[in-house]
Amino acid sequence: MRNLEVSLGERSYPILIGQGLLDDASLLLPALKTKRAVIVTNEVVAPLYLAQLSSALRAAGVEVAEVILPDGEAHKDWPTLNRIFDALLGGRAERSTTLIALGGGVIGDMTGFAAATYQRGVPFIQIPTTLLSQVDSSVGGKTAINHPLGKNMIGAFYQPRRVLADIATLDTLPDRELSAGLAEVIKYGLIRDPQFFDWLEANIERLRARDAEALSFAVERSCRNKAEVVAIDETEQGERAKLNLGHTFGHAIETGLGYGVWLHGEAVAAGTLMAAELSRSLGDLSAAQFARIEDLHQRAGLPVFGPALGAQRYLELMRHDKKVADGHLRLILLEGIGQATIRGDVGETAIAAAIEARSR
Amino acid sequence: MRNLEVSLGERSYPILIGQGLLDDASLLLPALKTKRAVIVTNEVVAPLYLAQLSSALRAAGVEVAEVILPDGEAHKDWPTLNRIFDALLGGRAERSTTLIALGGGVIGDMTGFAAATYQRGVPFIQIPTTLLSQVDSSVGGKTAINHPLGKNMIGAFYQPRRVLADIATLDTLPDRELSAGLAEVIKYGLIRDPQFFDWLEANIERLRARDAEALSFAVERSCRNKAEVVAIDETEQGERAKLNLGHTFGHAIETGLGYGVWLHGEAVAAGTLMAAELSRSLGDLSAAQFARIEDLHQRAGLPVFGPALGAQRYLELMRHDKKVADGHLRLILLEGIGQATIRGDVGETAIAAAIEARSR
Repeated sequence: MRNLEVSLGERSYPILIGQGLLDDASLLLPALKTKRAVIVTNEVVAPLYLAQLSSALRAAGVEVAEVILPDGEAHKDWPTLNRIFDALLGGRAERSTTLIALGGGVIGDMTGFAAATYQRGVPFIQIPTTLLSQVDSSVGGKTAINHPLGKNMIGAFYQPRRVLADIATLDTLPDRELSAGLAEVIKYGLIRDPQFFDWLEANIERLRARDAEALSFAVERSCRNKAEVVAIDETEQGERAKLNLGHTFGHAIETGLGYGVWLHGEAVAAGTLMAAELSRSLGDLSAAQFARIEDLHQRAGLPVFGPALGAQRYLELMRHDKKVADGHLRLILLEGIGQATIRGDVGETAIAAAIEARSR
Repeated sequence: MRNLEVSLGERSYPILIGQGLLDDASLLLPALKTKRAVIVTNEVVAPLYLAQLSSALRAAGVEVAEVILPDGEAHKDWPTLNRIFDALLGGRAERSTTLIALGGGVIGDMTGFAAATYQRGVPFIQIPTTLLSQVDSSVGGKTAINHPLGKNMIGAFYQPRRVLADIATLDTLPDRELSAGLAEVIKYGLIRDPQFFDWLEANIERLRARDAEALSFAVERSCRNKAEVVAIDETEQGERAKLNLGHTFGHAIETGLGYGVWLHGEAVAAGTLMAAELSRSLGDLSAAQFARIEDLHQRAGLPVFGPALGAQRYLELMRHDKKVADGHLRLILLEGIGQATIRGDVGETAIAAAIEARSR
């Protein structure tokens, strides 16, 4: 088992990464305030892993309740969140009751936001079961639900007390979701870890074949990158924004098509190619570097073009994104592989051209 | 103008108390991150004070948007909160846009929760216009909405950047609401400030007659007490719980009757008498002390008996309250005037008897 620390003073917490961690309640007990827990999961994950986790906890003397939500980004909304609150209030969950998110990014984001706001905050544990949530969304304390006018618009920064990434849960992940997770893995290489990008170029097929050792390495390296960035800039005043490479374009794709039509990672991949295209057009990225980025995404099974919504529609949706300051779009662009930069000065004509070049 | 500080490290903020502060935009400008603000108020307060505040800000070059919500505790819910989000997203409010709550406790709690969660947190200013919100809810960062199964069940600790208590706004407050505010004023005397309790016994009629000097003194003294408690225990791990004297009983009254039938302060008054009755039955409060408490509440125009819901119904509602730990009701009781204590060991038979004695 690998053990990383997210360093945030008194809110620091460990990320445990390994095979078959779900059965081992002793990994969770130190993070429980009292022996009461509510596991939140979805209809897809529940039949696979819920019984395993619940029995391990119950055998350790923990009183466990379960909430099973519908699956998918389309349900990351208030009515679904409210089902968690109904269950907590119906079951008389207390301020000391721990919420456990068992599932992908949607479950983690919603459970985290429920934990942040139920009785103004209760303890919370992340057990991510998808590659995307293991390498990205479970770490760093961003929680949220969507609003019809924008993704993740209502949320909170709220850190979990522990993250448990069980690589064994990736065995049941559909290929498409595995690829979607690789988009966020590649991102770390692109924004700050060129050696990792090189490693990914050499090992992308092993990852897609679910080689356990390769997956463990990629999850740990990704989490290490994320933890370092979050420790520097927890609430995204600066450095943390670089983690949003491809996300402003990507959110426009997700919102424009309707939540859940494209997976988040797929939208991020196409968005990253748009950001790379824009970086190339600004002279910050060479054609050879661009080609490496496109090639790795393709080999990861990811889309390298966005849907043809029209550049104006993209821009309109992007202006609703959170990455806007004083009316200017703030974009994460690349100045090479392993080097990201935050730019608020790029004209909309150039942005529109990059969108057109990378959508079809 | 009086100026108090709530000491919370980098989240410290001033409380400004005085006459006619609404017209003076210079009091607000230091708390704005950019020159964009959204004022949230309700249908009752808007015709009285909204134009005054908006024009002062606009004259100072601030771009101002306005959101006017329906009035009352019955609207402190998700659909009404969502009207704030709709307005923020429709108006493209950014992470740096400041939300300003102009109104009573309901407006402050909802605007604060919107500020805590819109884009995971935007700047926020409190301008309380009722006595209750000036002396209590606007200070200390508790924000929330209600859930059908419990009051303030969904919320966050989120501090404002500034509180502006304009005593002049109390001139238009209905008598019933003025009295409701006095319940929280009396509370500070009861839990930690016996000299203030004595002063209230001597000056309660001046307060009800809206003597400006008396009101200013009472607001400042109350805020000072609140600020001291919040600085010691921001997230209510211990000491801050004493501010909930009468509130667990009171919330049962509010939820049991339906939100808005009794004003919050009225329910707190009746709840405080229940807590006092229980303290007397446990031998911690003398009959003479009890009589002073009852007398002062009566002179303040407040109810000293709760509605006859039946003790079992009270207890059932109280078990849903946030003040429950490991299945035990935690109550704030009195050990004299100016001395509160947190008790988790009182049997339900004694609690039920006190409820029955103080409801009719």
